[in-house]
Amino acid sequence: MRPSERAVDQLRTIKVTRNFTCHAEGSVLIEFGNTKVLCNATVSEEIPRWLRGQGQGWVTAEYGMLPRATHTRNRREAASGKQGGRTMEIQRLIARSLRAAVNLKTLGENSITVDCDVIQADGGTRTASITGGCIALYDALQKMVEAGKLKKNPMERFVAAISVGIYKGTPVLDLDYPEDSDAETDMNVVMDENGGFIEVQGTAEAAPFSAEEMSNMLALAQKGINDLVAVQKEALGL
Amino acid sequence: MRPSERAVDQLRTIKVTRNFTCHAEGSVLIEFGNTKVLCNATVSEEIPRWLRGQGQGWVTAEYGMLPRATHTRNRREAASGKQGGRTMEIQRLIARSLRAAVNLKTLGENSITVDCDVIQADGGTRTASITGGCIALYDALQKMVEAGKLKKNPMERFVAAISVGIYKGTPVLDLDYPEDSDAETDMNVVMDENGGFIEVQGTAEAAPFSAEEMSNMLALAQKGINDLVAVQKEALGL
Amino acid sequence: MRPSERAVDQLRTIKVTRNFTCHAEGSVLIEFGNTKVLCNATVSEEIPRWLRGQGQGWVTAEYGMLPRATHTRNRREAASGKQGGRTMEIQRLIARSLRAAVNLKTLGENSITVDCDVIQADGGTRTASITGGCIALYDALQKMVEAGKLKKNPMERFVAAISVGIYKGTPVLDLDYPEDSDAETDMNVVMDENGGFIEVQGTAEAAPFSAEEMSNMLALAQKGINDLVAVQKEALGL
Amino acid sequence: MRPSERAVDQLRTIKVTRNFTCHAEGSVLIEFGNTKVLCNATVSEEIPRWLRGQGQGWVTAEYGMLPRATHTRNRREAASGKQGGRTMEIQRLIARSLRAAVNLKTLGENSITVDCDVIQADGGTRTASITGGCIALYDALQKMVEAGKLKKNPMERFVAAISVGIYKGTPVLDLDYPEDSDAETDMNVVMDENGGFIEVQGTAEAAPFSAEEMSNMLALAQKGINDLVAVQKEALGL
Amino acid sequence: MRPSERAVDQLRTIKVTRNFTCHAEGSVLIEFGNTKVLCNATVSEEIPRWLRGQGQGWVTAEYGMLPRATHTRNRREAASGKQGGRTMEIQRLIARSLRAAVNLKTLGENSITVDCDVIQADGGTRTASITGGCIALYDALQKMVEAGKLKKNPMERFVAAISVGIYKGTPVLDLDYPEDSDAETDMNVVMDENGGFIEVQGTAEAAPFSAEEMSNMLALAQKGINDLVAVQKEALGL
Amino acid sequence: MRPSERAVDQLRTIKVTRNFTCHAEGSVLIEFGNTKVLCNATVSEEIPRWLRGQGQGWVTAEYGMLPRATHTRNRREAASGKQGGRTMEIQRLIARSLRAAVNLKTLGENSITVDCDVIQADGGTRTASITGGCIALYDALQKMVEAGKLKKNPMERFVAAISVGIYKGTPVLDLDYPEDSDAETDMNVVMDENGGFIEVQGTAEAAPFSAEEMSNMLALAQKGINDLVAVQKEALGL
Repeated sequence: MRPSERAVDQLRTIKVTRNFTCHAEGSVLIEFGNTKVLCNATVSEEIPRWLRGQGQGWVTAEYGMLPRATHTRNRREAASGKQGGRTMEIQRLIARSLRAAVNLKTLGENSITVDCDVIQADGGTRTASITGGCIALYDALQKMVEAGKLKKNPMERFVAAISVGIYKGTPVLDLDYPEDSDAETDMNVVMDENGGFIEVQGTAEAAPFSAEEMSNMLALAQKGINDLVAVQKEALGL
Repeated sequence: MRPSERAVDQLRTIKVTRNFTCHAEGSVLIEFGNTKVLCNATVSEEIPRWLRGQGQGWVTAEYGMLPRATHTRNRREAASGKQGGRTMEIQRLIARSLRAAVNLKTLGENSITVDCDVIQADGGTRTASITGGCIALYDALQKMVEAGKLKKNPMERFVAAISVGIYKGTPVLDLDYPEDSDAETDMNVVMDENGGFIEVQGTAEAAPFSAEEMSNMLALAQKGINDLVAVQKEALGL
Repeated sequence: MRPSERAVDQLRTIKVTRNFTCHAEGSVLIEFGNTKVLCNATVSEEIPRWLRGQGQGWVTAEYGMLPRATHTRNRREAASGKQGGRTMEIQRLIARSLRAAVNLKTLGENSITVDCDVIQADGGTRTASITGGCIALYDALQKMVEAGKLKKNPMERFVAAISVGIYKGTPVLDLDYPEDSDAETDMNVVMDENGGFIEVQGTAEAAPFSAEEMSNMLALAQKGINDLVAVQKEALGL
Repeated sequence: MRPSERAVDQLRTIKVTRNFTCHAEGSVLIEFGNTKVLCNATVSEEIPRWLRGQGQGWVTAEYGMLPRATHTRNRREAASGKQGGRTMEIQRLIARSLRAAVNLKTLGENSITVDCDVIQADGGTRTASITGGCIALYDALQKMVEAGKLKKNPMERFVAAISVGIYKGTPVLDLDYPEDSDAETDMNVVMDENGGFIEVQGTAEAAPFSAEEMSNMLALAQKGINDLVAVQKEALGL
Repeated sequence: MRPSERAVDQLRTIKVTRNFTCHAEGSVLIEFGNTKVLCNATVSEEIPRWLRGQGQGWVTAEYGMLPRATHTRNRREAASGKQGGRTMEIQRLIARSLRAAVNLKTLGENSITVDCDVIQADGGTRTASITGGCIALYDALQKMVEAGKLKKNPMERFVAAISVGIYKGTPVLDLDYPEDSDAETDMNVVMDENGGFIEVQGTAEAAPFSAEEMSNMLALAQKGINDLVAVQKEALGL
Repeated sequence: MRPSERAVDQLRTIKVTRNFTCHAEGSVLIEFGNTKVLCNATVSEEIPRWLRGQGQGWVTAEYGMLPRATHTRNRREAASGKQGGRTMEIQRLIARSLRAAVNLKTLGENSITVDCDVIQADGGTRTASITGGCIALYDALQKMVEAGKLKKNPMERFVAAISVGIYKGTPVLDLDYPEDSDAETDMNVVMDENGGFIEVQGTAEAAPFSAEEMSNMLALAQKGINDLVAVQKEALGL
C-alpha cells in the first residue's frame, strides 16, 4: 500500500555515521532512507546573557537546508536575508527536544549549539535532526567529560523523534516525501527512551482526525521511537 | 488549587465583542479572562501568485503583540526589523487552523487575512486568536455573501482552540499566565465543532508526560472546545 | 460645510479611558471621534547609553498602526522588516513633544517609553497620540512618585496637539479623514497648557498658504489646545 | 552677537555651481557657507506603479550624508542596513517641497529623482538641499524641453528653504552649526517665490516659543527666501 | 618543509564523488584533502530579467559554509540576516569563473545556478568550489543534452582553480589551512584546460611580493591546474 | 587607437586636492580624468574588539557611490538596505591595500577609517580610491604626529593602484569607462613605491589571457604606479 512498500509500522533504513566532519565536538550524519541530515554539536563556555549567574547551562539548535536538498531549488535563506517561518519553527522544536534530554544544572555554565543541516530531503527532516542531534549532543558532552570539564555526561535520557500520519486512511510510521505530500494527517512525536512524551505536533492536512486515529498514531510512534533509541545506543556502543 | 480558584475543567470568562473596529470586514475583540486579542479579518480579491488559476481562495493570518501587552515591555518587532520565531510559529498555527474551517474552493479566487493583535496578555493568546479569528472570519465571509460575491458562506465548520496542561500534577483547562509559567506540560488543541482534531501541539516543560496524561488533557480540551463553539455561535446569533 | 457638520472651531468628541490595559504603568485609550489610539507608558530604570552619568532621564516614544486600523489594510511593518518613513517621522514628533512636558533632571536616571498604537484611524492619529500619551506619561510618573522613586511628578506642563487646516478655503480645527484627504493645507500644532508652541508642522497640500491663513490656523489651534488640556486634567481629576 | 558675526537677517554666503557632475540631467553643488550639498536630478520615463495611467508625473527625493561630512564620523547608512529616522524625515520634506514647485500634469508620465548628498555639513543641510534641488530640478526639466520631450518647463514656481531660530533670545536667519546646537527654537521654512508657504516646521528645543516669536521668525524667513530665489534665478540666468 | 610533508608542487589528494545527492541535475562532492565542498548545479528555464530576449543563457553561483565547517563555529549567515563580504566575494568569483567555461549563446535562454556549500574547511574552499562546480555544471548541461533541450554540451573549456603562495619564503602549491594562516602571500588562480588565465587574485599578506615570485607562483599554478583538469576529466569518464 | 587618444601607457590626468572637506583628519579629492573620488580619513582611538590588548592599530575602509555618479542612476544602497557584493569586494580591497602601507604596531591602539565616496565615475574608481586614500591616510597620520599622539608617521611605504587591460588586443594602462566596458581582460594592480606587489586581481572578460599578456600588463602597471607615487608625493610636498 505504501509507495515504498514498507509495512505500516516500518521505519526507513536508519544509518548513523559518527565523526562525519572533523572539527565539531559531535558530528553525526543521520540518514532516514533518502533524508540525510548533518548534525554538528559545538561546545561553548559562554552562555546566553539572560542565564548568567544561575549555575546552569543551555542547549540550542539551528536548522538549515541546502538550497538543492529538495526536488526543486529553494532560495538560500542567507541570500534572502532571513530565516523563514518553517525554519524557525523547526529549530525551536529541535532545541526544546534536546534540552529535555539534558540536565542543564549538571552541564554547568556551558552551552551547546546543535546545527542540523539538511544535505538531502525526502520527508522527516525534523525528526532525523532530533534523532541525530541527540547522538551528536551525547558525543559532544562525552568529550567534555573526557576533557575533565564535566564529571559525568549530563544527558539524562535519550530522545528521538518520528513522524506518523494517516495515509490513504491508514496510520503509518515514518512518512517519506511521497506519503507526506499526500497524507490526511501528519504528526511529529518526540519521546524519550522511557516512553515519555516530549513533544507532540499533529496537523490535520485534509480532514480533522479523531481521538481513535490519534491513539493509533501514538502507538505507532512509540514503536518507532523504541527502534530509534536502539539505533542511537548501538551507534554509540552503549 | 488553581491560582484563579477555577475548577480544573473551567474556562475563564469568555467575552466576544463583534464590530470592535469599524473598517475591517470582520472585527472581533475576544477576551479569555484578562487576555484580550483584537481579530480583524480583511477581504481581498487578490490571491497569492502561486495559487492563481486554480479556482480557489486562501486564508492567512498574522499575529502581533503590542509592546506593553505583557508584564514587562517587549521590543516592538517593527523596530527590531523582524518577526521573532514565536510570532512566526503562532501565526502559522492560526492560519492553518482557520483554513481548516473553510472550503477554499467555494471561497473562489479571494483571500482573507486575519490579523490577531494582542492588546493585553495573560496566557492563551494563540487560542484566543484562533477562537476569535474564526468569528471575525465568519463575519467577513458573511459580508461577501451579503454583497453578492459568494452564494453561501464557505465556512464549513467552526474551529476553536484551547490550552490544557499539567499544573501541580493535575490536568487543567485554559491556563492563565501564572499557571502557564509553572506548568509541567502545556498543550494547545484546535478542534472543530464536531470534535475532530485540527492541531495538537503538546510540550513537556518540566518532565515527559504519559499517554494517560495526554488522554486526560485531550478530554479536558474537548470539553472546553464545546463551550467555546457555543460562545462563538451565540455571539453570531446562530 | 464640514462633512461631520461640526463648527469650524469644534473638536470631535474626545474620550479618555485611563487604565485601559492592566500591565503598563500608564495606559490610556484616547478617542478623537473615530480615531482611537492606545497609549501605554512604560517606566524603566535604564537610560540610553549616551545619557549615562549625566544625572538626567529620558522620554521616548514609538508609534504603530494595526494593519486594519485603516479603510484598506496596510502591510504590517514587523512583516515588511522596517518601520516606514511616516512612522519614524511621527514617533520622533511624539517623543520630542512629550520630552517638552517633563523636567528630565527631576526624572533622574530613569526612562519612560510611550507606545502609541492606533487601533482605529480616522485622521489625527499623531495629535491623539501626543494628547493621550501625555496623560499616560503623567500616570506613569505619578506611580513613580507613589512608589517613592520620585519626590514629585516631574511633568512641568501639560502638552497637547491638534490639527488645523484649510478645507474648501476655510480654516478648520481637528480634521477627520474625509477632510484631511481633501484639505488644501494641513498643520499639526503642539502646544503647552500656557499657550507656548512646542511644535508646528504645516504642509501645503494643494496650493501655498499665506501668512494670514497661517495666523488664522494658529488661533484655531490655540482654542483646540485649551479644550484638550481641560479634558486631560479632567481625566486625571486635577 | 552671532558666532559668525553675521547680522540677524543675514544669510551665509550662498554659492551655486551648476553641472558639478557630468552624468545627471541636473547637477548642482550648493553651498550655504560651509554646508555643501550635491543635488543631482535624474529623469526617468518610469513612474511609480500606483500612479500609472493617471496622466501625470512624479518628483521624489533622497537624502544622504557622507559619513565624514560632520565633525565626528557617522556610521554609513548603507552599512547599518537602513536609513535612519532623521534621513527619512528630511527626504520626505525635500520631496514634498519640490513637488510643490512643479505641475505634475504638465510633466506627463515621467518622474524625477533628486538626490541630495551632503558633502560637508555645518547646519542647514535640508534647506540647502531644497534650495539647490530646485535648481537641479529646473535644469533637468529644461533638458527635457530641449530634447522635445516636454513643450514647456513644468516648474510653476521656484521654491527655496531657510532655517530661522531663536538664538540667545533673538530671532536669527540661517543658523549655522554652532548656532543650531545652541538655539532655543529651530524652524525650517519652505516658501515659493511669491511668498506662499509650502512647509513650516518649528521645534522648541529649550522652551516653548510664543506667537510673537513665531511671527518674527516667519518675517525673517520671508526675507531670506527672497534672497535665495534671487540667487536661484541668477544661477540659471533667468 | 610543509606541515603536510607534501612537495612544494604537490596537490593534496583530490577526490570527486559525482551524484552525491539525488535531486540536483549535477551534484559533486569534491575533496581537496580535508576540505570538502558539495557543488550542486540546478537547471532553470528562467533567466534574469535584464537578460531576457537576448537569446543567451546565464550561469551563476552561490557559496556558503556550514557553521561548524571550521575549527570554531561561525555564525550562520541566514541567522545574522546577510551574507558577509567574504561570501559575496567568493561567490562572485565562482560565478565569473564558471561562466568563462560555457558558451552562453549555445546555452539558450536557460540558467544554471551552482551552489557550493562547504561541509568541512581546511583551506582552499574557493578553489575546490570552482573545480568541483565545473564538474557539476558539466553534468547538469549533459542532462539537458540527454533530455533533448540542447543539441550539444555548451561547455567550451574545463576550468579549474588552485591556490599558490609564498610559505616560509618558498612558493608552494595548494595551501592547506595551517599554511594559509601563515603564508606571506596567497594567490588564487583560475585557468582553463588550455593554460589560459581566467582569474588571478594575489594578495600580499605579510610583505609585498616581487615579479619573480609572482612568476614562480604562476608556474606552480599551471602545474596544479593541469593535474586538476585531468582529475575532472577522469571523474567524468572523458 | 584608444577612444581617449591616449598612448597605451599613458595615465589620464591625475589631480589631487587635499583638504577638500574641513572636518576629516585627511580629506582628498582625487581625479583620474573624469573619475572623481572623495577620500576622507577619520582617526579614532577605538579599535575593533578582536584586536584589543594586542598593542596594535587598524586601518579599514568603506566605499560608496553616489546614486548618480554613473551614466544611469543606481539604487542608493542605504535605501535598498544593504551593500552589494561589488561594494563589499571593493572596500575589502581598499582596506587590505592601505593596511599594507602602514606599520600597525607603530600606529598603537588607534584606528583609521578611510571613506571613499565616488562623486563621479568613469572607470577605475577602486584604483583612484586606493591612490587617493593613501594620501588622505598619510595626512591623517601626520596630524596624529603633530598632535603628539604618535612619534613618527607609521606609513612605511606609499601604495597606489592602477588598472591595466587588453583592449582590442593591445595591453593598455588606466582604462576609462568606454575601454573598460569593451576590454577583453581587466586587471587591477596595487603596488608599493618600491615596485612590490600588494594585490593583483585580473579577470578575463571575453577570452582567457596568456602568461605573456599578463607579463605585459604587469609591466604597464609598474610604469603607471611609478607615475602615481610621484603624484602622491608631490601632492604632499615630499
